[in-house]
Amino acid sequence: MICYVRKVNYYETDQMGIVHHSNHIRYFEEARLFWMEEYGILYSELEKMGIVVPVISVDCQYKIPLRYGDCVGIKVCLVRFDGIKLKFAYEIADPGTGKIHAEGQSSHCFLNADMKPILIRKKQPEIYQKVVAALKEDGGVGRKDMR
Amino acid sequence: MICYVRKVNYYETDQMGIVHHSNHIRYFEEARLFWMEEYGILYSELEKMGIVVPVISVDCQYKIPLRYGDCVGIKVCLVRFDGIKLKFAYEIADPGTGKIHAEGQSSHCFLNADMKPILIRKKQPEIYQKVVAALKEDGGVGRKDMR
Amino acid sequence: MICYVRKVNYYETDQMGIVHHSNHIRYFEEARLFWMEEYGILYSELEKMGIVVPVISVDCQYKIPLRYGDCVGIKVCLVRFDGIKLKFAYEIADPGTGKIHAEGQSSHCFLNADMKPILIRKKQPEIYQKVVAALKEDGGVGRKDMR
Amino acid sequence: MICYVRKVNYYETDQMGIVHHSNHIRYFEEARLFWMEEYGILYSELEKMGIVVPVISVDCQYKIPLRYGDCVGIKVCLVRFDGIKLKFAYEIADPGTGKIHAEGQSSHCFLNADMKPILIRKKQPEIYQKVVAALKEDGGVGRKDMR
Repeated sequence: MICYVRKVNYYETDQMGIVHHSNHIRYFEEARLFWMEEYGILYSELEKMGIVVPVISVDCQYKIPLRYGDCVGIKVCLVRFDGIKLKFAYEIADPGTGKIHAEGQSSHCFLNADMKPILIRKKQPEIYQKVVAALKEDGGVGRKDMR
Repeated sequence: MICYVRKVNYYETDQMGIVHHSNHIRYFEEARLFWMEEYGILYSELEKMGIVVPVISVDCQYKIPLRYGDCVGIKVCLVRFDGIKLKFAYEIADPGTGKIHAEGQSSHCFLNADMKPILIRKKQPEIYQKVVAALKEDGGVGRKDMR
Repeated sequence: MICYVRKVNYYETDQMGIVHHSNHIRYFEEARLFWMEEYGILYSELEKMGIVVPVISVDCQYKIPLRYGDCVGIKVCLVRFDGIKLKFAYEIADPGTGKIHAEGQSSHCFLNADMKPILIRKKQPEIYQKVVAALKEDGGVGRKDMR
Repeated sequence: MICYVRKVNYYETDQMGIVHHSNHIRYFEEARLFWMEEYGILYSELEKMGIVVPVISVDCQYKIPLRYGDCVGIKVCLVRFDGIKLKFAYEIADPGTGKIHAEGQSSHCFLNADMKPILIRKKQPEIYQKVVAALKEDGGVGRKDMR
């Protein structure tokens, strides 16, 4: 589990006076790319290898509105990896009080530049090993555990 | 069911060459507010009455990437209303071929300006009647059906 | 001169209750790409030819705030083209009253995929002819007029 | 002069593979609000006093494209304050090499909640003093200097 900290920007609010709900999805991405970086999987390196990791699905549950000036910690955890698909879980919380503002999940898969699925274990064994190590570190569920 | 048509903007793409996944959540909102308008429930009127309808949860499943220049139809349908919470379903499809690009759902509730839940039936009976009529029109599920 | 009409989206507002000023820059882009389309210069076709037309500079003067629900007409006009650089002028106005919400300009140039300037007249004479015709139509200033 | 550092987010890129030019305007805002904070002028406090400071005009000159993963320093400086209007200058540069990616300016004024101009010196003398002190610190031009 990695915690990514950032502040809420003014332009992320809407006329309801709170952060527009689409931005939480962007915060998830920021946190996920930071998570990858922390585990030595640089997304820009992946793209140079001709690999993209698009979002297959995303969900978010909104609990306490975020407001301009808030500082938030976005916890991100790899909860599942079966060799093809990745699933991340997120929690957006106040780093001070621990109060949870939002929770969510996202699923992804490794694709080549033509948007076709690839077996990362065969294409880039080093990346595969890093993802497996991260999964173990995060306490997530892998293919073996699914049997 | 209402279908809202729009084109994909250039600034909605990312360096993967496809529409960034957070924008689908914004398309859902555009379609939902258009739906409300079509059913005579103007969101700006609601806000003037001191009522907001924030998002409680949202999810999206991405099937075919959207690209700059694409024209999309976003079908939106009120699938559930129990007097407090609303649930909408969405489908983003190519108006020509009918191919589905993405699907999703969102949940909402009626709140006052202090972000406290309100019984719309008591506070604004006219709005309530319009939502109930829309639910019936859309073939959604209401409180009676849940019993 | 082309006029592009669109409605203001909810997610484009900020907590000041008005459209965030960065969105006007996006409206300019929408209008400019629509302008190009109207003059038969499809931006997606340009990119397929390996040509990009990035923004070199932009400015905007904000007069009357835009609000959610507003319908706006964005007038766009090619005011200058010297064979390399393009300059557009914009006016965001209420289509009903004609009241001007904002005005601005943007400068661009034709580049290849490596971000190096190209002479569009030599690389794509057909595109060049269309830009020159559009410039004439819009009453803008070309190289000859600058002598 | 204050320097605000941040990383470029993936969702800020477009299909040209570079940061969309509208985001530079958002970076300016982030830097400006950080500047205000550093000088003890909290924007959220201003809004609680019923004061807003909208953008009257903005411009940006783009020199070197920004890319995902880039770390940027945004220098912001109050260059002018005449008691009503404020003018800021910005420079987006690579903190390592010093190479300038973009430059720009923005003008603002103090308004009340009804979007009417106010004399900040009379309404909130403390805020006024802080702005004057910041202007001096930044080497900007005030009313006296304009005589």
